[in-house]
Amino acid sequence: DKVIRQRACCALALLTSWVVAPVRGMVGFAAAAWWWLLSLAAAARDRAVGFGRMAWKIGADDPRKVAHGFKMALALTLCSMFYYVQPLYAFTGHNAMWAVLTVVVVFEYTVGGCLYKGLNRAMATLTGGALALGVQWVASKSGKEFEPFILSGSLFVFASAATYSRFMPTMKARFDYGVTIFILTYTLVAVGGYRVDEVAFMAQHRLTTIAIGAAICFAVCALIFPVWAGQELHDQVARNMDKLAAAVEGCVEDFFSSEAEAGAVLSERSLGYRAVLNAKASEDSLANLARWEPAHGAFRFRHPYPLYQKIGAAMRCCAYCVDALAAAATGSGAHHAPPQAKKHLAGACAALSRHCAAALREASGSVATMTRSGRLALVVGDMNAAAEELRDELTCLAALLEDDDVDVDSPDAADLPEPAPPLIEVLPLFTAASLLLEICARAEGVVGA
Amino acid sequence: DKVIRQRACCALALLTSWVVAPVRGMVGFAAAAWWWLLSLAAAARDRAVGFGRMAWKIGADDPRKVAHGFKMALALTLCSMFYYVQPLYAFTGHNAMWAVLTVVVVFEYTVGGCLYKGLNRAMATLTGGALALGVQWVASKSGKEFEPFILSGSLFVFASAATYSRFMPTMKARFDYGVTIFILTYTLVAVGGYRVDEVAFMAQHRLTTIAIGAAICFAVCALIFPVWAGQELHDQVARNMDKLAAAVEGCVEDFFSSEAEAGAVLSERSLGYRAVLNAKASEDSLANLARWEPAHGAFRFRHPYPLYQKIGAAMRCCAYCVDALAAAATGSGAHHAPPQAKKHLAGACAALSRHCAAALREASGSVATMTRSGRLALVVGDMNAAAEELRDELTCLAALLEDDDVDVDSPDAADLPEPAPPLIEVLPLFTAASLLLEICARAEGVVGA
Repeated sequence: DKVIRQRACCALALLTSWVVAPVRGMVGFAAAAWWWLLSLAAAARDRAVGFGRMAWKIGADDPRKVAHGFKMALALTLCSMFYYVQPLYAFTGHNAMWAVLTVVVVFEYTVGGCLYKGLNRAMATLTGGALALGVQWVASKSGKEFEPFILSGSLFVFASAATYSRFMPTMKARFDYGVTIFILTYTLVAVGGYRVDEVAFMAQHRLTTIAIGAAICFAVCALIFPVWAGQELHDQVARNMDKLAAAVEGCVEDFFSSEAEAGAVLSERSLGYRAVLNAKASEDSLANLARWEPAHGAFRFRHPYPLYQKIGAAMRCCAYCVDALAAAATGSGAHHAPPQAKKHLAGACAALSRHCAAALREASGSVATMTRSGRLALVVGDMNAAAEELRDELTCLAALLEDDDVDVDSPDAADLPEPAPPLIEVLPLFTAASLLLEICARAEGVVGA
Repeated sequence: DKVIRQRACCALALLTSWVVAPVRGMVGFAAAAWWWLLSLAAAARDRAVGFGRMAWKIGADDPRKVAHGFKMALALTLCSMFYYVQPLYAFTGHNAMWAVLTVVVVFEYTVGGCLYKGLNRAMATLTGGALALGVQWVASKSGKEFEPFILSGSLFVFASAATYSRFMPTMKARFDYGVTIFILTYTLVAVGGYRVDEVAFMAQHRLTTIAIGAAICFAVCALIFPVWAGQELHDQVARNMDKLAAAVEGCVEDFFSSEAEAGAVLSERSLGYRAVLNAKASEDSLANLARWEPAHGAFRFRHPYPLYQKIGAAMRCCAYCVDALAAAATGSGAHHAPPQAKKHLAGACAALSRHCAAALREASGSVATMTRSGRLALVVGDMNAAAEELRDELTCLAALLEDDDVDVDSPDAADLPEPAPPLIEVLPLFTAASLLLEICARAEGVVGA
């Protein structure tokens, strides 16, 4: 409504300037209005430029999104042919509207989304229509005066039951859209049929056009630059695992970097774990949609998509620990720690983080290629050895601290927080990572070579 | 399709049992088939019972969901009156279908959701229809043979631009549904109008029925047991804050409880922080919907909903730390720690967790009542004092450890992880909590008394 307000302001300013201009004494006011108008136009232009730049950036980042726009337009144009071409129009008649409606509503970015909506729509239309025809047959047998009451009553019962069923988690995940369409079809057929004589004929005609619309949708969506939800999910999980690996390395580096001052911001790389933290919603929806997809490429029909969700959950678990580590790295504890103790641990910590990142990368690689990597066990072994080494270093440091407690300026406040972070932060990180690796191994077991 | 398969199996079993029964030697087979049939029926009944129990549980937990089902049915029944009552039908005619369509599509659980969809639909229908009429006027001026090409071309351009615009974050959050409807309306009017002479008349008629449908929706949604998205968001944030407070207390208690064995599960209360971790998606959508709501109750028109999202983000930040703390509490470090050191810290840690929880509860209370609580500063002061005390205890313990390092069985592996968790886990927790409190204070400043 900001644009509307701006336009209203513009119109007002123009009007004022027209009315006021002839009056010589108020030329100043008109000039002010004119200037105001210009500045408004400039603001609007800036907004438009910003909008265009954002649009360009989104398209440059992922050209498939631009392709999606054209695919949608293509599907709609194909549908509109049913109006323009005389023999086709003779076949569908005014019902071509339903094909357009189907395309607009069913067409989605991923193939899985398109199939989910299309199949839901088809199932719901069929069951809703059949049920409505049955109820209407019963109602028509019971006499003209009872018919509206029976139809309204059944509508009330079915609509409330169907709406309520949308709150159930399993229904919500798989058939949410279908329930909406069921209610819609039932209402239109049961209630609308009251005024139409040839209900069955009408229903059959509509079904045909809906099927045509859905077929156009699937064809355009799956054949022209298809975007598979399963592939997206797969890529996202592998990419997030790489980000997590980079973040683990980055955080430990930032922690031990000597030139960093207190309150320093973390490097770009270290903050990659935030993408992992917020990925839950998109992973869940992609896994839900991927379930509807047919076999494509390396993804067979019953591909274990829920495993990706499990891997995602384990990664988030790991990312929480990385968050705590990052907080320790930016906190004051890291910078006030005695340098000699820091130096003592730096090597072992850096080695552990390197090995942990290597294990994560190896796991990400084996997820990406869907193979069981023989090197994974080796890398995990290295990681465990590095963790053992860090524990030894800590033991050693504890013994050292008893000696040089006196020559550090603030021994109590500083040297306790210092040795603590690595072990305590790395321990859960390490357990989370090994959990993650276990799950990866299971995922590979199911996915196969 | 499991049910269908079951039924097919039942039918098959019945058929087999009919054919086979007369043959005496195969009575055993018939009995087996019968038994199989019975077990299938039992399985189906168990499924139905489980489904019914889940439905009952959802309704018992939140009766408003049941009410929502009935509200939807009521709105649809009201719409169906346009078909049954003769004077109303004379007014709307066959276009009553659009009222039904509007109700099914626009009706949502929260008032904000309903308004968002309704207003989006109204705006999109108007702009799409107006644009389509304009383009059609231009096309009709350019001659009959060019008309389809101009219309198809404009459809292609507008549909691809509109679909592409859905990828922009701001459009996605506020006008996603409107863009779909814009495409739908534009297509129906621009393309459908090619075959209808009285396009303007038809469009005006449809608009009236859509407006009637939307009005019924709003009336039923907002007047009968309304569910406000703003109120939901408010309650959810306050409830999550309480859960977080309980989890902080619970985790520290579990950590220091002496009777717990290694690998023990955390208490129910301690796991409350998981709800906070996964609340992001629902908070975001509620805040988006709440923006569309008019003033209601204590929520004024420009209520600062984004602040709730900020509080939620700070709480999640805090919950990550609680997660690390919980991992430390279940890990082996907590149980192998030397008892005397544990006892030494238990008091200070318990006091800090109590004060931290008290501060969180105070903040939650002040969010819930939307007042700036004078006690909040006091409670935060207490918390800071408790944190200071814990630091002193740690200093003291560090000095002690130098003495009794020898009489503990495994001094290196056990006594270092032991003093570490409280300080290092509590420190970020503490910073996150104070951040949270800051944000709460700001929220109150904006919300007012």
